Amino acid sequence: MATVRRLVIDVLKPHEPPLIDFTERIAAQHSVAGVTASLVERDKEVQNVKLTLEGDGVDYTSVQEAVEELGASVHSIDEVSCGERVVEERATFQDR
Amino acid sequence: MATVRRLVIDVLKPHEPPLIDFTERIAAQHSVAGVTASLVERDKEVQNVKLTLEGDGVDYTSVQEAVEELGASVHSIDEVSCGERVVEERATFQDR
Amino acid sequence: MATVRRLVIDVLKPHEPPLIDFTERIAAQHSVAGVTASLVERDKEVQNVKLTLEGDGVDYTSVQEAVEELGASVHSIDEVSCGERVVEERATFQDR
Amino acid sequence: MATVRRLVIDVLKPHEPPLIDFTERIAAQHSVAGVTASLVERDKEVQNVKLTLEGDGVDYTSVQEAVEELGASVHSIDEVSCGERVVEERATFQDR
Amino acid sequence: MATVRRLVIDVLKPHEPPLIDFTERIAAQHSVAGVTASLVERDKEVQNVKLTLEGDGVDYTSVQEAVEELGASVHSIDEVSCGERVVEERATFQDR
Amino acid sequence: MATVRRLVIDVLKPHEPPLIDFTERIAAQHSVAGVTASLVERDKEVQNVKLTLEGDGVDYTSVQEAVEELGASVHSIDEVSCGERVVEERATFQDR
Amino acid sequence: MATVRRLVIDVLKPHEPPLIDFTERIAAQHSVAGVTASLVERDKEVQNVKLTLEGDGVDYTSVQEAVEELGASVHSIDEVSCGERVVEERATFQDR
Repeated sequence: MATVRRLVIDVLKPHEPPLIDFTERIAAQHSVAGVTASLVERDKEVQNVKLTLEGDGVDYTSVQEAVEELGASVHSIDEVSCGERVVEERATFQDR
Repeated sequence: MATVRRLVIDVLKPHEPPLIDFTERIAAQHSVAGVTASLVERDKEVQNVKLTLEGDGVDYTSVQEAVEELGASVHSIDEVSCGERVVEERATFQDR
Repeated sequence: MATVRRLVIDVLKPHEPPLIDFTERIAAQHSVAGVTASLVERDKEVQNVKLTLEGDGVDYTSVQEAVEELGASVHSIDEVSCGERVVEERATFQDR
Repeated sequence: MATVRRLVIDVLKPHEPPLIDFTERIAAQHSVAGVTASLVERDKEVQNVKLTLEGDGVDYTSVQEAVEELGASVHSIDEVSCGERVVEERATFQDR
Repeated sequence: MATVRRLVIDVLKPHEPPLIDFTERIAAQHSVAGVTASLVERDKEVQNVKLTLEGDGVDYTSVQEAVEELGASVHSIDEVSCGERVVEERATFQDR
Repeated sequence: MATVRRLVIDVLKPHEPPLIDFTERIAAQHSVAGVTASLVERDKEVQNVKLTLEGDGVDYTSVQEAVEELGASVHSIDEVSCGERVVEERATFQDR
Repeated sequence: MATVRRLVIDVLKPHEPPLIDFTERIAAQHSVAGVTASLVERDKEVQNVKLTLEGDGVDYTSVQEAVEELGASVHSIDEVSCGERVVEERATFQDR
């Protein structure tokens, strides 16, 4: 199987643990070299967070487990980059 | 024939296999150096995914076969770069 | 735990101390390599300020304490980057 | 005569041959170092494709012949770069 | 205290001295490595000018004094960067 | 006199000679290192073309003569860069 | 006094001398390393031109004299950069 190098996932989490602790825990996964967590929206109950993860072989199963152990859930997988290198998506006329 | 160096294709896939497994399988094709799969839209039945593939001689026939073996189909071919190097498309007055 | 490398937080502060003194004090935290404070809005009572902080292991607890000692409060944590390196968030179709 | 280094042309082609084969054939022209073919629009009969070609002395006559041998036609020539180097067009107040 | 490396301030000045003389005088402050003065608006009485200042330890007190000696006043402090390096502010979902 | 390093001119030309031949002829001028011709608009009679020319001492008189020998005319001179180096125009508040 | 490194000025000029001659004459000033003249608007009588000038110590007085000797006038000074280096103005929330 090819190496997963970048993942963008959309997550719903409760307010606790706070975003910093939550992100530290995801980044602590062995297969993850770095994570950026971006707060998209929040209401009284939940925070909607976009996670961008990179690594040389990101293990999605363990990422998903870590998300769920923190009381959160993966709402959708929005972008996946696999292979020897990251290929950047770019705009085409068909997107416009 | 000239070498295919980058391909952008629009794919319709069922929800299973999930996007990560799907992308890993496409990236595992011998002629593909890297793939990014971007979720464009989804409804109850299908996901509409934009695939950007690069390699030094991407074999579209085997890519298309891999897509179909995964229960998906290529809806359109949106951009193709061939030759000794990738030439970047850029905006002209006739696009505007 | 993974290293916090960048934080973006939204802060409400009174007019005193002025933004320069306030920013110098936050930047004086041992774990902070640099801070940019951007004035977002102000009214008679308060200034709404966006803080972007970087460091090799930003200690949020001490940042938050410094903010509060200056009479201000953290309104929200908007972005957190953790791990061996900073991963840049980038636009996907799901943001658009 | 000066060397043609980049050409942007607008082409109408039938659905057959598919865009990948079409692009490979254009890129196989001796004077062409690389081509990107971008699908602009399509209907039941034809595809409207923007071709960006580069080379150290692109021979337009042979490119046009190759396009026509594939059952397609050049609808317009949208940009031409000639000389010792490619000069990039840039926005001026008179475009705005 | 941490080093101030960049300041963006909003200034109201009379028409005299002209913007060039005004900017030269601000830039002549010992703690200022460079200044850009951008005319934002002007009416019969005053010019509204955005000053972007950089230096390795900008002394705001002397900058403010220089502004006032020239008959102008600081209307607001819009951005402050402090620390070992300049951290660039970047867009988040919460700005949008 | 200072050296002309970049020129942007707006040209009206008949359909013949075609844009490729036209651009090759302009680029063949001794003082011109490179030209990009961009089709802005066309109607039954004429093509409106934006020419961006660079060189170490572009001789406008000979460029204008070449344009006119090709049955075209210079409609306006939109940008001129002169001196030891090209200075890039950039946006200010007064443009907005 | 600090060194003027970049100036953006707004000029009104008659149609004669043409923009190329005009720009060559401004660029011929000893203190000017390069100039870009951008045509903003024109009517029957005058051309409104934006001049971007750079140099290691631009002498505005001689630039203004050169402008006036050519029958033109400086309408406004829109941006001035002074000091040891050019500091780039950048967007803040207060501009938006």
